[in-house]
Amino acid sequence: MKLAYIGLGTMGAPMAANLLKAGYNLTVYNRTRNKEISLVNKGAKHANSPKEAAIAADVVFTNLSDSADVAEVVLGNTGVIYGMKAGSILIDLSTISPKTTKHIAQELAKKDIEMLDAPVSGGSEGAINATLSIMVGGKADILEKALPLLQVMGKSITLVGPIGSGQITKAINQTILAGTYNSVAEGIVLGLAAGIDIKAALNAVSGGAAASWVLDNRAENMINDNYPLGFKTSLYKKDLGIALETAKELGVAMPVAAYVEQLETSLVKRGYGDEDISNIARIVREQAGIE
Amino acid sequence: MKLAYIGLGTMGAPMAANLLKAGYNLTVYNRTRNKEISLVNKGAKHANSPKEAAIAADVVFTNLSDSADVAEVVLGNTGVIYGMKAGSILIDLSTISPKTTKHIAQELAKKDIEMLDAPVSGGSEGAINATLSIMVGGKADILEKALPLLQVMGKSITLVGPIGSGQITKAINQTILAGTYNSVAEGIVLGLAAGIDIKAALNAVSGGAAASWVLDNRAENMINDNYPLGFKTSLYKKDLGIALETAKELGVAMPVAAYVEQLETSLVKRGYGDEDISNIARIVREQAGIE
Repeated sequence: MKLAYIGLGTMGAPMAANLLKAGYNLTVYNRTRNKEISLVNKGAKHANSPKEAAIAADVVFTNLSDSADVAEVVLGNTGVIYGMKAGSILIDLSTISPKTTKHIAQELAKKDIEMLDAPVSGGSEGAINATLSIMVGGKADILEKALPLLQVMGKSITLVGPIGSGQITKAINQTILAGTYNSVAEGIVLGLAAGIDIKAALNAVSGGAAASWVLDNRAENMINDNYPLGFKTSLYKKDLGIALETAKELGVAMPVAAYVEQLETSLVKRGYGDEDISNIARIVREQAGIE
Repeated sequence: MKLAYIGLGTMGAPMAANLLKAGYNLTVYNRTRNKEISLVNKGAKHANSPKEAAIAADVVFTNLSDSADVAEVVLGNTGVIYGMKAGSILIDLSTISPKTTKHIAQELAKKDIEMLDAPVSGGSEGAINATLSIMVGGKADILEKALPLLQVMGKSITLVGPIGSGQITKAINQTILAGTYNSVAEGIVLGLAAGIDIKAALNAVSGGAAASWVLDNRAENMINDNYPLGFKTSLYKKDLGIALETAKELGVAMPVAAYVEQLETSLVKRGYGDEDISNIARIVREQAGIE
C-alpha cells in the first residue's frame, strides 16, 4: 500500500512518523520544504508538489491549518486531485469547516475519489504517542479500509456520520471547551480573590457535578498563572472561529462560544497565542486585578 | 449527645432522617410545621421555635433557603442563639452568602458558641443516600468534634479554610457549573442543528478534553429536551446570585456566570424553576429554533 502525507506541522510530522514506524511506504510534502527532512531521514520519499506526492497513492492524508489551505492542496493547480487515482481515498486530518469539507468531497467524487474527514483531538502529545481521538465523517466501508492506518496514529477512532460529520463533532468539542475553560477560570479567580486555600476548595468540588477534564488537568496552570502547552491558543481561536461560522450557517446562537472567541482574539493579539488555552485565566485574573 | 435540626426541606428532611437512623437524640423545627411529622414518626422530638429546639443541644444544624432565613433562624427574636449554650456548635448546611456567614459567626462567638459553614452538593439523591459532598469552613478542632455527625449525612467532608470558606467553595462550584452546562448545551444544539448522530459525536468527544460530569450525566436530558431533577433551577438561580454578589464584593468580574444567571431568571420566570438545571438547553434550543 502506497501512502502520501501533506502537511508536516506540530501534529502532522509525528503522525506521519508513526505511519513510517509501522512500515508503510510513505511520500511526504510540506510547503516549507525543510520540514520534510526528518521524515526523509526516517525513510520517507519526498515529492515536489501535492500532486506529485499523490501519484499512485492508495491513501493521501492532509493535515493543514485551515479550510483555505486544504482546498488549495487538494483542488489547487498542483493539488492532489490531479495525482490521485479512481478508488483512492483522501483522509483530511485537519480541523476545517464542514462546508469546505463537503465541497472538496463533491469535487473528488467527480473523479471517483473517496474522502473521509477525520479531525483529531489530543494535542501534540497524543500525536507523538499515537493516543489521539479521531472523529471520522464518511462512508463506513471506506473507514473500514482506512482503519488500520488510523489506528497507527490514534487510540479512539469513531465514525460519527456522513462526510462533514467529523468536523461538526470537532466543532462541538471546541464549543464545549469554551465555557468549561472560562468558568473554571472564573471559579478559581473567585477563590483566589477570597484568599481561601484554592487547592483544598477545588479538591472538594472536583468529585461532584463541577468535575471536568479541564478542572483536573488545567486548574494548576490557572492557579500558577503559567500556561505551558497543551493546546495552542492561536489554533483554538481558529477552531472556535470555524465552530461559530458553522453555527451561523445553521442559525444556532452560541453566545458563550462567541464571547470566549473574543477573549482568544485578545490573547493572540497580545502575544499569548503560543500558550496553552488555559491562559483564558489571564484575562479573568486581569479583570479582577489579581497579578 | 443532643442535636437540633432546623429546616426540613428537600435536603434537610432526608439529612435529619439519616441522623435519626444513626441513633442520635434529635429535636426538629420547621416553619411549615407539618413537615416535622414524618421526622417525629421516625423518633424525633419537635419544638415550637428555633430557640426551643436549641435548648441544651450540643450541635444545632440549620438548613434553609437563603441568607436572610438563616440570619432570622439564628439571630432573630426566637433564634437558636437564645437557646444554645456556651461551647455548643452551630453547623449551617445551607448555601448562603459568605458575608452573612461571617456576621452570624461573629454574633455567636460573643456567646462562646462555635460555628461551621458546611454547604453541601450532591442533590436530593445525595441527601437521601448520604453521599453528599460537604465543604466545611471553620476551625479544625471544631470540625473534628462534628465529623462523626457529618459522616452520617455525607461521603466526602473537606475542611477548606476558616469560617466562610465553605460558602466560597460552594460559590466556586456553582460558578464552574454555569459555563460548563451552557457550553455543553451549545455544543449539543450545534450537533442537533447539523443533523448528525449526536450520541455518536458526544461519545467521540467525551473521552478527551471536553469530558465533564455534566456531559456524562446531563447530555441525554438536553438531547431529549426533558429535564427531570436533578438540581432545581430555582435553587441554582439563588446560588449563582450568591456567587455573583460575592464576586462583586471581591471585585471579580464573572461575565459567563452573570450571563447564565440571566438565563436562569428567564427559566424561573417562565415556570421552569422546578426542572433540573440542564434545562439551560431549553433556551439554546429556542434560540436555534429547534423544538
